[in-house]
This record gives sequence, C-alpha cells and structure tokens, in this order.
Amino acid sequence: MRLLLHVPKAPDEWRDAFVRALPGTEVRAWAPGPAWQADYAAFWHPPRELLDGQARLKAAFNLAAGVDATLRSLALPPGVPLVRLEDAGMGKQMEEYVAWAVLRYFRRLDDYARQQARAEWRVHRPPRHDEFPTGVMGLGVLGLRLAAMLRALGFPVLGWSASRKVLDGVRTFAGAGELDAFLRATRALVCMLPLTPDTAGLLNRATLGRLPPGAYVINVARGGIVVDDDLLALLDSGHLAGATLDAFHAEPLPAAHRFWSHPKVFLTPHCSALTLVEDSVAQVAGKIRAFERGEAVTGVVDRARGY
Amino acid sequence: MRLLLHVPKAPDEWRDAFVRALPGTEVRAWAPGPAWQADYAAFWHPPRELLDGQARLKAAFNLAAGVDATLRSLALPPGVPLVRLEDAGMGKQMEEYVAWAVLRYFRRLDDYARQQARAEWRVHRPPRHDEFPTGVMGLGVLGLRLAAMLRALGFPVLGWSASRKVLDGVRTFAGAGELDAFLRATRALVCMLPLTPDTAGLLNRATLGRLPPGAYVINVARGGIVVDDDLLALLDSGHLAGATLDAFHAEPLPAAHRFWSHPKVFLTPHCSALTLVEDSVAQVAGKIRAFERGEAVTGVVDRARGY
Repeated sequence: MRLLLHVPKAPDEWRDAFVRALPGTEVRAWAPGPAWQADYAAFWHPPRELLDGQARLKAAFNLAAGVDATLRSLALPPGVPLVRLEDAGMGKQMEEYVAWAVLRYFRRLDDYARQQARAEWRVHRPPRHDEFPTGVMGLGVLGLRLAAMLRALGFPVLGWSASRKVLDGVRTFAGAGELDAFLRATRALVCMLPLTPDTAGLLNRATLGRLPPGAYVINVARGGIVVDDDLLALLDSGHLAGATLDAFHAEPLPAAHRFWSHPKVFLTPHCSALTLVEDSVAQVAGKIRAFERGEAVTGVVDRARGY
Repeated sequence: MRLLLHVPKAPDEWRDAFVRALPGTEVRAWAPGPAWQADYAAFWHPPRELLDGQARLKAAFNLAAGVDATLRSLALPPGVPLVRLEDAGMGKQMEEYVAWAVLRYFRRLDDYARQQARAEWRVHRPPRHDEFPTGVMGLGVLGLRLAAMLRALGFPVLGWSASRKVLDGVRTFAGAGELDAFLRATRALVCMLPLTPDTAGLLNRATLGRLPPGAYVINVARGGIVVDDDLLALLDSGHLAGATLDAFHAEPLPAAHRFWSHPKVFLTPHCSALTLVEDSVAQVAGKIRAFERGEAVTGVVDRARGY
C-alpha cells in the first residue's frame, strides 16, 4: 500500500508516525513532477496540483478539522472521498481553551486584569450562572463537546446550527430564521462554525448587534466568519464587552491589524486546538484500514455543503 | 430564639435572609454596650468584644471558611463551639477560579498575552497533561474539590496536608517530612491551606525553590502563608514562571506593593470565592436547627489546631 504525504511542518515526525501506524505501507513525501501512484493521500495546506495524475486514489485525508482552505485550493480528483479530522485530540484542547475564555469573562478576570494595571482593589458582586447563558454556533463533533462542557460548568447553554439538532439540556436553534432569537438570548457566544459560503461574514454588525449589551464573542473557528471592522465597532461602542479570537482572515495576523492592540481583544495564534501528530495519525490509519476492509468511515466531507 | 448578627457589608441583606430561614427567630445586629443575651451569633470580621457578656450562647458561626482572623481578634467565651462555613457556594467558585488559572498557565495563555502586547505570532508546541502535574496544598472540603476538579481536567494531581489523607487518583503527601517530595514533583502549586502558626510563611524561598524550574504558584488561601519577597525573588530569577494571587498579608493590598505591577503576577482582590448570602445563611440555619435538636454539626473549629 502507498501513502502520499504532504505536511509543511515536521514532515519526518508525520512520516515516522504513519510508518509505525501502518506497517508495510510505503509512505512518500509529495514532490512536484510525475505522479507517484498512491492508494491514499494525507495532507495539510495542500498545493493545487498535489493529487494531479493520481489514478487509483481511494481516499484523501485532510489533516485538520476545517476543510475550507483545502476545498478552495486543492484539485481533488472526482470520486475520491475527502475525509477530515474528527476531534483527534482537538476536542479536549478546544474544551480547555473555551472553558478558560468563558470563565475569564464570567468571573470578570479581564476586568480584574485592568484593575491590576491601575492598582485598583475592587470586588465585583458574586457571579450568577443563570445570568450568563452561553451560545455555541456550530454543533458538529467539536461544538457538541463544547456545549456539554459548558453545561457541566453550570452555564445555561444554547446551540445554533444550520440544520436542526436536538440535544439534552441545550436549547437549540436552527437556520437563518432562528439566528436572531439565539443571539438575543446569548451572553457569551462561542463560534465553532465551519467556513462556508453561508457562514462567511455571518458575524457582522447586524448579527453581533443582536447579542445583548455586555456580551462576549469567542471565535475558535475561522476568521472569515467574522467581519473584523464590525466586531471592532461594537467593541468600541461598548455594546460588546470583549472578544477572544483564535482565527483570522489572514494568518499570521498582520502586525498592523487593530486586533493586536485593542484593549478588549485577547488573541492567540490559531492554537486553541493544535493538530496532534500521534492522535491524528492513529485516526487516519484506522480509517485507511476501514477503507481496505470496504467499510464506511465518518468525517467524509460533503463538498456541496462545504464541510 | 435569638440570633446576634454582625456583618460589616450588606447587613440588611444578611438579616432578612436569616429572618426568612429561621422563622420566629429574633435577629438583632450587634451594637456596643450591655450584651443582648442571644442563643447564637453569626459574624464576619468580629470586633474583639462582640461576644462579651454572652451567658447562654450555644454556638458562634464564622461567616467565612477561614477563621484565622477571628481566632486572632475575637474573645470567644469558653465552651462555645466556633463553626466555620463549609463550601456554602464557595467550592464551585474556587473550582472555577483555579481551573481558569491552571488552564491559563497550562495552555500558555499568559505567554500569548505577552506575545500579543508585542504583536508576535508564535505557536508553542501542543501541551501535554503528563508534563503538568498539579499539586494542591490543604485537603479540606475545598482542597478536595479542587483535587477532583484538576483530575477531571486530565492533570496528574498531588496533594499535601498536615495529616495523611488517602484519595482516589491523587498522590498524597503528609507533614513536614514529605513536603519537599511534594514540591519537587509539582508544576502548578495550588495553595488552599488554612493560616495557622504552622503554615504562616510556609511558602518561602526554601520551599518555593524546591518547585521545578518554570513552576507556577496559585494562592487562593491566605496571604500570610506566602513570604512575599521570597516569591518575588523567585519570579525575578526566573525559577518561577508565574503567580496568581487572591490573598495578601494586608487587604486591600497597598498600592505600593510590587505584586500590583509585577509582569509575572496576576492578582485579584480576594474574590476567588465570595461568600454567598443565601447559601451561607441556609447552611448556618441548618446547623442551628441541628444544635436545637441536640445533634452534632460539622465545621466546628479545633482551636488548638487553628482550623
């Protein structure tokens, strides 16, 4: 069996992990030129021509959960399923990051940090969970984990997704028609949506303006979902109390972008859930074995839907 | 039945809550002068003479978990049990605060904040829980909750207490003889100890120096347990990577104290677990009813031990 591999970062680590996970498989790094005929391909940030000339490819594995960049850039041979990572160690990281961000706002630790900067000793009144409904946008594998985690922390949890989901203990909303109601009832918004033509720019002045005054925005999904200037305007006006951002239109975020220095923005360099080599390779290897046995796998991307 | 009450903050709110919780009980705020003979007393920051002349007092309730200040200041009639708050809504708050602080360090969000200040986009390698053992000092009601919470988050958990405890999934250490071993194995130290003659100044240059390089200190207990200059010296030398402090020798923390402006110190105004009026009154009222029925209650302070 042959596996074509393309990862810009730590290629040897990925290669060795695949060799260990799939004994007997020939693993080769992609190089421009005539196609080395492979059975499977696994990649991150694929160049357009990565799969050109592949005649017998059974499946292509995106080594990330989001496939928006891959769908834009890669020429995928027709009929080849594109499979994305599902959790693979990212869920726990995402839970930690979002728990940290939500607790920081709920317990006003952003305000306390500002007070420390001016040596001000002032205690705010005790927090109440019922005053702090959290809303998760996007209820896929990771969004569901976040909703359950927020519920376990004691927060009221709302969920919004394109298609209706029914979740125990979560008040769910579906589609464009219910977006307003979801936003009006959400104090801390957690964006976990895939980036698709439908979600690009979905968090803009109109939608974010429906969040109640003093609301918070946490974006751990894709930068393209947010209209940056609209978010900044609502932070500047005081309508929004803070934003924690891990994803941006351009990455690395340009040094001149206002997010870097905005006092109400906490930003991180797309690290809320890093791809873990061992966990990811184990998942992909398991799915390759399933393909070889002729079994169905989960995580196959619906190209029309975009995720 | 008569309840003597002394609370400097929101006295009417406390009074009304006690009246609702103990129907038929006469609740009176303390005032200097001849003693109003009461059956029970409940107080926060009591003046020395609060209980002078009380001849029939059955129990005295400290409306906080820590009793160090009360034991120092209050003249408690002999034979009267002193009862402290146990959890009463503080446990959940403490869990949230410590979860936030530990996740912040584990996920290097303090480093990312510093990177944001200089517009630096740099991703650190994925975190590993097995490299981040957390250690809880003090395994009382609140310390046990913290140990369980940290375990649920996936961290290795160590526990240290004056007397030996056996806890499922927690590596426990006891007494002065095992303190060094506990500290050497702890990456994030959470101090939840009571302040007693034995713990005053316990976290000093020698003990904190035994934490491994790059360790973190989180003090949610009492400021008197830490020798401030020693902690600062270890932060300045780089041996310790950060400290999150919620309790101080003097409160409010004096404006000139170096903690306010130290880049590796995050401080909050003793708000990690605020006393909740309803929860606290419900607990004290329940214990008063138990006393009236002649039953034993938990939370009675051992004055010799100091907690």
